[in-house]
Amino acid sequence: MELNNKIFFDNASTTRIDDRIYTEMEPYFKIHYGNPSSLHEFGEIASAKLEESREKVAELIGANEEEIYFTSCGTESNNFALWGIARAYKDKGNHIISSAIEHHSIINPLKEMQKEGWNVTLIPVDEQGFINPEDVKKAIIKETILISIMHANNEIGTIQRINEIAKIAKEAGIIIHSDGIATAGIIPVNVNEIGVDAYSFSAQQMYGPKGAAALYLKKGIKIRPLLLGGIQERGRRAGTENVPAIIGFGKACEIAKIEMMDNMKFITGLRNNLISGIMKNITKVKLNGHPTIRLPGNVHISYEYIEGESILLMLNLRGVAAASGSSCTSQALKSSHVLLAINLSPTMAQGSVLFSLGKYNTQQEVDKVLEVLPPIIDRLRKMSPLYK
Amino acid sequence: MELNNKIFFDNASTTRIDDRIYTEMEPYFKIHYGNPSSLHEFGEIASAKLEESREKVAELIGANEEEIYFTSCGTESNNFALWGIARAYKDKGNHIISSAIEHHSIINPLKEMQKEGWNVTLIPVDEQGFINPEDVKKAIIKETILISIMHANNEIGTIQRINEIAKIAKEAGIIIHSDGIATAGIIPVNVNEIGVDAYSFSAQQMYGPKGAAALYLKKGIKIRPLLLGGIQERGRRAGTENVPAIIGFGKACEIAKIEMMDNMKFITGLRNNLISGIMKNITKVKLNGHPTIRLPGNVHISYEYIEGESILLMLNLRGVAAASGSSCTSQALKSSHVLLAINLSPTMAQGSVLFSLGKYNTQQEVDKVLEVLPPIIDRLRKMSPLYK
Repeated sequence: MELNNKIFFDNASTTRIDDRIYTEMEPYFKIHYGNPSSLHEFGEIASAKLEESREKVAELIGANEEEIYFTSCGTESNNFALWGIARAYKDKGNHIISSAIEHHSIINPLKEMQKEGWNVTLIPVDEQGFINPEDVKKAIIKETILISIMHANNEIGTIQRINEIAKIAKEAGIIIHSDGIATAGIIPVNVNEIGVDAYSFSAQQMYGPKGAAALYLKKGIKIRPLLLGGIQERGRRAGTENVPAIIGFGKACEIAKIEMMDNMKFITGLRNNLISGIMKNITKVKLNGHPTIRLPGNVHISYEYIEGESILLMLNLRGVAAASGSSCTSQALKSSHVLLAINLSPTMAQGSVLFSLGKYNTQQEVDKVLEVLPPIIDRLRKMSPLYK
Repeated sequence: MELNNKIFFDNASTTRIDDRIYTEMEPYFKIHYGNPSSLHEFGEIASAKLEESREKVAELIGANEEEIYFTSCGTESNNFALWGIARAYKDKGNHIISSAIEHHSIINPLKEMQKEGWNVTLIPVDEQGFINPEDVKKAIIKETILISIMHANNEIGTIQRINEIAKIAKEAGIIIHSDGIATAGIIPVNVNEIGVDAYSFSAQQMYGPKGAAALYLKKGIKIRPLLLGGIQERGRRAGTENVPAIIGFGKACEIAKIEMMDNMKFITGLRNNLISGIMKNITKVKLNGHPTIRLPGNVHISYEYIEGESILLMLNLRGVAAASGSSCTSQALKSSHVLLAINLSPTMAQGSVLFSLGKYNTQQEVDKVLEVLPPIIDRLRKMSPLYK
């Protein structure tokens, strides 16, 4: 089977690049290959386009271009935000508040920071994956210097009331960061309206290339660099800028800004059709997250008595690409911490599949999945010792 | 003037991508766009090609593929090596030895580490930029856990006797890292023959794309991750891999392995013609570094009485792209620490220009520069209050 006949329902892990974005990047590989830091025309052309991209990236989230710092990936943005802000304010306190369902690029640095003496509180979530803003408020102590709560969860799709959490942070005078890798370019984001001080987002989740991401940092907020060396990114992120990828990121933001509402409507329609089709045709299933306050393309469902991995394997044989959770840890074969946090039983958690839909998907593809999935579930259940 | 008629003599800052490398990368943007961590065919195709690239990258420097960790740029590789190795061995001691002429991506993390209690010794160099291995030996104390000495200097081109330094490290049981960003893919490098435990190198210096670099880490050497999150790169570097860039890096290494000796011979010829032409036609100049133990494409010369920046500006107007030193700090307008370390007077240091030649340059371009440079120097000297 040809790859282009396959159905890609794994847009949460990465997206197919938009041809218009690729076209924008291409000359910066082959013709305008200069290093933006160089003081000659090759460098100036690269540098000018880089700054044009910074404006587009800023504009998507309602920020100012000097509040945007480019990084190599969402993970770097999240690590940079945590380490960088915490170290810059370490004289004020050593307490950080985050949540139990953050991505590993937040959870794992926080674990490391705990070893180095930082005091970390992880707020639990309810069964739909919501953080109660009141819980954040109660967790604040005199030493709290940073709150980091993700905007929407990459696995179960739940969109947090991040503006309420930001308000609490603001009232307490505490810096708030949000991981927006699953949201920016997908749903409307305005950092000033939300009220966050720092926001991570990435190109590869919005039809842009791998290799470019950003950290928004509100003017006046201090940060210590994670990568030290040259004076790129105004001394806050050393290393030659990945010019073509950043240009692709800029174009991705520009397109997202214009087409987002139409895409949202279209993708939400596909999502709802897929969810209702699965709920109707397959028994003993559970939709995780909230029915409507979820990412437009997110279809995260648990299938009782069977293993998510086996479902994925059989879907793959039938030309459907899906995921069991975060791709960053997919090969670790452990139950997702997100699913345990929403109090899903370990066996239901193991039987979960995430279909994440994007703008290149079609109703025909949804129909195809609704055709192949029920017999797969049926067959796997018949093979399962748990199913009677 | 069209950009493609311009002369690019700034290959030390970054290189034009080889068309064969670009062709290799292209399908991984548009068709095989999967996340290598995903458990489906899109992911498997990306992952398989990623591992094929790892083999090619390893092969270039005589390493094993499981000793290669991909990063986003040379700066990240250098930061990762220093922070990661030092922290992994911090129970053994807190002393690090490096040199006065390292790139800023070594110098600046070391400065930061000093603030955090690490004890750093920077070995001086002689007037040609050589580190005396005996000086390294003398600097070793009981607490020394890491030696980091660059293979060749990116500004003045001097190639160190790194194998002698590595031998001293080995005899003392101390881990040795070398920054090979200016050397790998340019001159033959075999990490086992050199005897280093860790080695940084990057694609964009060898006709590959920006956004991909590597850290070689000898089997058995411990390192703490710099970026934490997912389990990519066997848990040592989190974040979605920049698949197309890494594939380009693999192809760059494959091509370099085959064509390096021819390129070296050709580029060294151009370099020698440019050096001798300048020395013959312009008075009061000084070639920095060693006449022959230097990078094949490196022409670093100081012109008395005038400013390097002015020379660059006028060269740029005549279609010639060159540099005054490291592009990573070119906009800082400070005297290079490398030139001060070789004891060049500050005024001579300010009057320096680096032409760095690559495989796409030609003898015609060398001739053109030899034609435009003398009148530029002449004109600037006439305008200089220092020149009589």
